[in-house]
Amino acid sequence: MMRNFKLTVSYDGTDFSGWQFQPGQRTVQEALEQAIATVLGARSHVNASGRTDAGVHAVAQVVNFRGETRLPPETLLRAINSNLPPDVVVREACVVSDSFDATRDAVRKMYRYVIRDNPVGDPFQRRYQAWIFQRLDPAAMARAAQVLAGKHDFRSFESEWPNRTSSVRTITRLDVRRVDEQICIDVEADGFLYNMVRAIAGTLINVGRGFWPEAKVAEILAAEDRNIAGPTAPACGLFLMQVTYPASGAA
Amino acid sequence: MMRNFKLTVSYDGTDFSGWQFQPGQRTVQEALEQAIATVLGARSHVNASGRTDAGVHAVAQVVNFRGETRLPPETLLRAINSNLPPDVVVREACVVSDSFDATRDAVRKMYRYVIRDNPVGDPFQRRYQAWIFQRLDPAAMARAAQVLAGKHDFRSFESEWPNRTSSVRTITRLDVRRVDEQICIDVEADGFLYNMVRAIAGTLINVGRGFWPEAKVAEILAAEDRNIAGPTAPACGLFLMQVTYPASGAA
Repeated sequence: MMRNFKLTVSYDGTDFSGWQFQPGQRTVQEALEQAIATVLGARSHVNASGRTDAGVHAVAQVVNFRGETRLPPETLLRAINSNLPPDVVVREACVVSDSFDATRDAVRKMYRYVIRDNPVGDPFQRRYQAWIFQRLDPAAMARAAQVLAGKHDFRSFESEWPNRTSSVRTITRLDVRRVDEQICIDVEADGFLYNMVRAIAGTLINVGRGFWPEAKVAEILAAEDRNIAGPTAPACGLFLMQVTYPASGAA
Repeated sequence: MMRNFKLTVSYDGTDFSGWQFQPGQRTVQEALEQAIATVLGARSHVNASGRTDAGVHAVAQVVNFRGETRLPPETLLRAINSNLPPDVVVREACVVSDSFDATRDAVRKMYRYVIRDNPVGDPFQRRYQAWIFQRLDPAAMARAAQVLAGKHDFRSFESEWPNRTSSVRTITRLDVRRVDEQICIDVEADGFLYNMVRAIAGTLINVGRGFWPEAKVAEILAAEDRNIAGPTAPACGLFLMQVTYPASGAA
């Protein structure tokens, strides 16, 4: 019985060369496809909501694949997990309609960028945050970020430009707040350009440390020029937190 | 000017062969002594509140050392940190009276043992918890643990027995509670026997999964026999959380 499975997957991106299969590299896609092949006895293509780059983490990446099995999803989940390395785990599994496609059907994604702004490091979080040695002002960062919410051409925050398609995206939520010793930047949008969240984070860090005035972010957005935005912040601070699908996505 | 410095140190024990210097091994003591030697130009012996074993973490280990320097403690802290690997950090530094000795003067220590009790793993916490594949009952564990509080001969929870000295210790606090997806066992005592917290954790896990009745813990304590207690739980779940000194310990 060939069915379409939807999985929610967490991974620590530290030791992966990103999501997408590359010959000779350790990738999350390869780890998942190998585990599924071991369980089902046949290789399936695993299709993700989107690629994540080398070093980027996922709390809840969503993928789908087609497999010939009568196993209930909960049993399949345990079987796949017992064949995965410890830095990847399937958190949820369900059967979805045959038409469901994790890439095409994603309507929104939410990424979180995590920054430690303290001269003293945290050995337990060092793989899971960017580390800035000085205190940042999250209120200034939050105010400066508001101009990015909504529908804009984000080519100032896109690493590969010019590309062949549109750089227009809609940010539906952009929050900056302190959580204990960390600052979290949450960005939800209908789609993301290459390195977009990391360029936004690098820009807001420059505001937070007082190097740029808050109004500079509006200038950067209007300029449509990647060269005047802040640097691309490190991959280790970035987490794919949530992918939203239309209610009809589940079987 | 020779002064006595007290440091509070955090480390991720995963990649260390424990606290104590051993030739050819990567130890926290060696990393700290090397960093201090680089800053001060002379090697000092760093004396900890107690050893931690290979793989055991510390949120707040306390150490002291004598150093010839006029650097203010805050400057010394930054200089040492810039010479430490990312899995060790000095969180606090102060000058203390010449008589202060981090080992001898410690009056209480608190350890935390952290357990994930879920069939699905957490890739981000995998280095910082023991992982049990089934749900535990923390209320049963907490009730069973109460018999251990107070002054007892804990030789049933001591890996190296017989030793030459007393196995009598006083547990001043023993809490078991669920925190989200984890169960935390906090044990505070005036001193700890070898592997004592890990043997208590292994015993309480057997209660929490219903393998042993709650009353079994009192039997184990009374038996004064390590063979009937639970297994030594893995090092990766153990954290040295706090070391308490008399108020006179600070200069």
